[in-house]
Amino acid sequence: MNEADSNEKVSRWLDGFGTALTRGDTRAAAALFEEHAFWRDLIAFTWNLKTLEGRAAIAAMLEATLATTRPLAWQLLGDARTTDGVTEAWILFETASGHGKGHLRLRDGRCWTLLTTLQSLAGFEERTGANDSRELGVEHGVVRHRSSWLERKMKDEAELGYLRQPYCLIVGGGQGGLALAARLKRLDVPTIVVDRHEKPGDQWRERYRSLCLHDPVWYDHMPYLPFPDHWPVFSPKDKIGDWLEMYAKVMEIDYWGSTECLGARYDEDAGSWEVTVDRAGEEVRLRPVHLILATGMSGVPNVPDIPGAARFSGRLCHSSAHTGGEEYAGKRCVVIGSNNSAHDICADLYEWGAHVTMVQRSPSIVVRSESLMEHAWGPLYSEAAVRAGITTDIADLRVASVPFKLMPEWQRPVYEKIRRQDAAFYDALEAAGFQYHLGEDGAGIHATYLRRGAGYYIDVGASQLIIDGAIALEHAASVASINERSLTLDNGKEIPADLIVLATGYGPMNDWAAMLISEEVAHRVGRCWGLGSDTRYDPGPWEGELRNMWKPTHQPALWFQGGNLMQARHYSRYLALQLKARQEGIATPVYAMEPVHHRR
Amino acid sequence: MNEADSNEKVSRWLDGFGTALTRGDTRAAAALFEEHAFWRDLIAFTWNLKTLEGRAAIAAMLEATLATTRPLAWQLLGDARTTDGVTEAWILFETASGHGKGHLRLRDGRCWTLLTTLQSLAGFEERTGANDSRELGVEHGVVRHRSSWLERKMKDEAELGYLRQPYCLIVGGGQGGLALAARLKRLDVPTIVVDRHEKPGDQWRERYRSLCLHDPVWYDHMPYLPFPDHWPVFSPKDKIGDWLEMYAKVMEIDYWGSTECLGARYDEDAGSWEVTVDRAGEEVRLRPVHLILATGMSGVPNVPDIPGAARFSGRLCHSSAHTGGEEYAGKRCVVIGSNNSAHDICADLYEWGAHVTMVQRSPSIVVRSESLMEHAWGPLYSEAAVRAGITTDIADLRVASVPFKLMPEWQRPVYEKIRRQDAAFYDALEAAGFQYHLGEDGAGIHATYLRRGAGYYIDVGASQLIIDGAIALEHAASVASINERSLTLDNGKEIPADLIVLATGYGPMNDWAAMLISEEVAHRVGRCWGLGSDTRYDPGPWEGELRNMWKPTHQPALWFQGGNLMQARHYSRYLALQLKARQEGIATPVYAMEPVHHRR
Repeated sequence: MNEADSNEKVSRWLDGFGTALTRGDTRAAAALFEEHAFWRDLIAFTWNLKTLEGRAAIAAMLEATLATTRPLAWQLLGDARTTDGVTEAWILFETASGHGKGHLRLRDGRCWTLLTTLQSLAGFEERTGANDSRELGVEHGVVRHRSSWLERKMKDEAELGYLRQPYCLIVGGGQGGLALAARLKRLDVPTIVVDRHEKPGDQWRERYRSLCLHDPVWYDHMPYLPFPDHWPVFSPKDKIGDWLEMYAKVMEIDYWGSTECLGARYDEDAGSWEVTVDRAGEEVRLRPVHLILATGMSGVPNVPDIPGAARFSGRLCHSSAHTGGEEYAGKRCVVIGSNNSAHDICADLYEWGAHVTMVQRSPSIVVRSESLMEHAWGPLYSEAAVRAGITTDIADLRVASVPFKLMPEWQRPVYEKIRRQDAAFYDALEAAGFQYHLGEDGAGIHATYLRRGAGYYIDVGASQLIIDGAIALEHAASVASINERSLTLDNGKEIPADLIVLATGYGPMNDWAAMLISEEVAHRVGRCWGLGSDTRYDPGPWEGELRNMWKPTHQPALWFQGGNLMQARHYSRYLALQLKARQEGIATPVYAMEPVHHRR
Repeated sequence: MNEADSNEKVSRWLDGFGTALTRGDTRAAAALFEEHAFWRDLIAFTWNLKTLEGRAAIAAMLEATLATTRPLAWQLLGDARTTDGVTEAWILFETASGHGKGHLRLRDGRCWTLLTTLQSLAGFEERTGANDSRELGVEHGVVRHRSSWLERKMKDEAELGYLRQPYCLIVGGGQGGLALAARLKRLDVPTIVVDRHEKPGDQWRERYRSLCLHDPVWYDHMPYLPFPDHWPVFSPKDKIGDWLEMYAKVMEIDYWGSTECLGARYDEDAGSWEVTVDRAGEEVRLRPVHLILATGMSGVPNVPDIPGAARFSGRLCHSSAHTGGEEYAGKRCVVIGSNNSAHDICADLYEWGAHVTMVQRSPSIVVRSESLMEHAWGPLYSEAAVRAGITTDIADLRVASVPFKLMPEWQRPVYEKIRRQDAAFYDALEAAGFQYHLGEDGAGIHATYLRRGAGYYIDVGASQLIIDGAIALEHAASVASINERSLTLDNGKEIPADLIVLATGYGPMNDWAAMLISEEVAHRVGRCWGLGSDTRYDPGPWEGELRNMWKPTHQPALWFQGGNLMQARHYSRYLALQLKARQEGIATPVYAMEPVHHRR
């Protein structure tokens, strides 16, 4: 089908859809969808992150939201394209609150998937060059006792949190906190970021020495300020650290380093939080209206309680506290776990001359980094994609356009291809006794990451060490005990050890809510992350979106921001707009809050 | 004429030109130019910055350079365009050393102006995403005693200048030094930047409080890392300071802050410099092969020796040492000078409640900032230009395509339009007694800047204060004497003064060579900056390029880098390539070094 036909098809559908919505005819609108269609909405209709699954759910949502959303001006953006009977198109629309952008898939004249997103709030658009609203920078004319940019900035910084309260307080200044803070800054929402580390970027700097990002550069840009064109494909941790430090500075983020959040309490009457922080030794009470936990999508380190740990005379630590292998030449090192950190740490120890044993507790996904680049990221996040005109924004929205329900089905062929292409690799890994899979249901790394935030290794070399036997492999569901200079597995085997690293992952994110606020609030909010896919570590009913992430929770004015750099970039937009809308008193009726099925 | 015809015309010309050059037929090649044509070459043919004026000069240059340059593969880039009988086109070509880009103007089938530039060196292209050569960042596989990015960086930093000598030493870490250092870093040329300020950006931070850039944001991007889209039009000085500090960090520039250059001597036998620096109290001897002075296109402050200065009981300082007006409410302040700094300082003093007198010594160009934005920068450096697809690179090369000889003629109509549009403003300024012009020959600000680096005020409000009499105005060629609490002009008038600010400009740039190296070298090199336009402060024979800037000088291995942010960005490319070529031993025969007509 040629472009003109595709465009015509989409425009006709949009006309019908727009007309039905304008008339308030939700039945007619829903009839334009397939019976099992998906409509994913990022705050444009629902003021929620919500995937409606099926025509009935779509009709119900429209019934509830249409009167306040008042969408109009639906139009095709660029050219539509038809492949294998599916017509895809980018679309624009307006709502009562702002400007929307979306993505549409049509089959046989009906909508199969629809993505709607709110991109900016009418009247509160960010000031940019693109919309001719940069600040001038200099104030022309005569201004008595003119203050300089620096003086105003220093005054603002000195007052915020003391003479003036921030509207938002973000706990955690990694990529998630910074991306959100940058967007809030641009939207004129007074915000403080607190972090126990001294400087932005220290969150990365303090991790193990050999750490590099496992995601490639095209996936990792922060909002507003992309990496320059020579940035390495996989950023070393300290380089990302420097970038984030610079980012916080030039984006003028109010970052309180060396600041520990001691506790937070929601004051229902005042409609604000009371948060106590220790700012480099000074106790400060803050009263933000909103509290955002950006403490990492991983919660606190998961340290299993192993009998006998106290009598161990070597070094025992969680992977988050392990920095590098340089002291362990000739030493016996045991790493419990078989995901990314475990592999990286094993390889590093081996390179420094240690005798390394990995204890695998359950199967992990393993995919070679090159194969992932080629097949999984390549189409949207690669140099080829950049050349094909796929900007970061387009790539992010294209990812967002895939309903989570369909993701396994769409991802499986990618991993089947990888399995075939790397057959020799997988056979060798299997022969070495490593238990691998490509996702419980074959859905691969990305789906597994969304379900449980872990469970895989992106191979940059450690797998070969396992294949070669350079890293010894043991299997055990758990460690039965730790002895004076060894550990005993639950299968009875004793392994001598000078160092034991527990690469045993992290607890759920609402652990942080429990620690910083209260058990009660953590329970009220329920589990964070995960979809309810009925796979391991992702229990509970299907929700169709990540639980509690970037959207309203059952605790008023409490939000969770987290994830990798891509998610920090993409979802911070919608979280920032939700906060800005509330600051400006724009109505934000949240459609169909999810029930809390899981506590922690 | 339609595009196809224009393209055809350019392709035909390029074919003829390319064929003649390949045959070594310089006569035939020269015959393709108009009798009074201009060929501006930025190191592609001449390893110099050189404008050949007229067919004979072009033929002579080709005669001398063709055998080593061996240009080929001339081709049209994009579409040509014909306006008023002039066909303009972007072109690509190759030389023996690298990849070239250029710009062509044809009239009646002959070349009127040609720009040729070398954009990169064959075999030494920068590693970028665009050419699929980013570094990987992580080293896959097994690497014994692997060092991290940070460890390698810290080792390199610790060794450079002590265990390993830099190939280049840049004195001065403002935008010029940093832009050049960033390019050299990308080209793997070991380089140290020394600056007496503690941190990058301090060069701006320490200037007077109210300073903002007078050039708009589109003109000011640094290489590789453009400002984000919300950056203000006119950056406040401290904001630029922060940006430059960040820039030095993320571009991994070896910046030695708090480091004073004590002296430099060229060792002819060794073919390197011996430079002594004081690095935060430690004396370090460096032996770079090349020495680049990036100490500001302005030289040292020009402080006139005024009789009686010693007996003045108020404060007397050069504009570079004046920080702000906050202490001068009710005080009598006299500012000598009538260019940018003088106006900014007068306005700032007035705003703080001082009684301000400006002493105008000679006529200045005054143009309203808005008018300059609209008429002078707008076509190439503006949001509209960005929307029209004019990237920073395109804009810079378009500017470079204008032969300096033609610039006054091409600029005059712009300023005539401004004069007409702002007639009321200029009439009022004249009525207030302010002596203004629009360049001695009407050529405006940019031409004047290239001739003498000063001589104008871009009005952001102070002119109205002069018109209103809020800033008093005096005229005098010079100050005859300074008294206990006043000054006496050469016309005999005495003006009471608590503060005297000498906004008397800066000496020529080779003052720095005299101070840091020797009088002898400063004289050997001769005057820096200026074209020889036979206008005030730009004496000497016509050179057609800026004297000694960004190109070889008569002192081996001594270079000057300077200018505004645009020049720092644009010309650093050619200076970096000249240095890289020398580092790699690529032949760089310099065509037609300019004679030294002016000492200092």
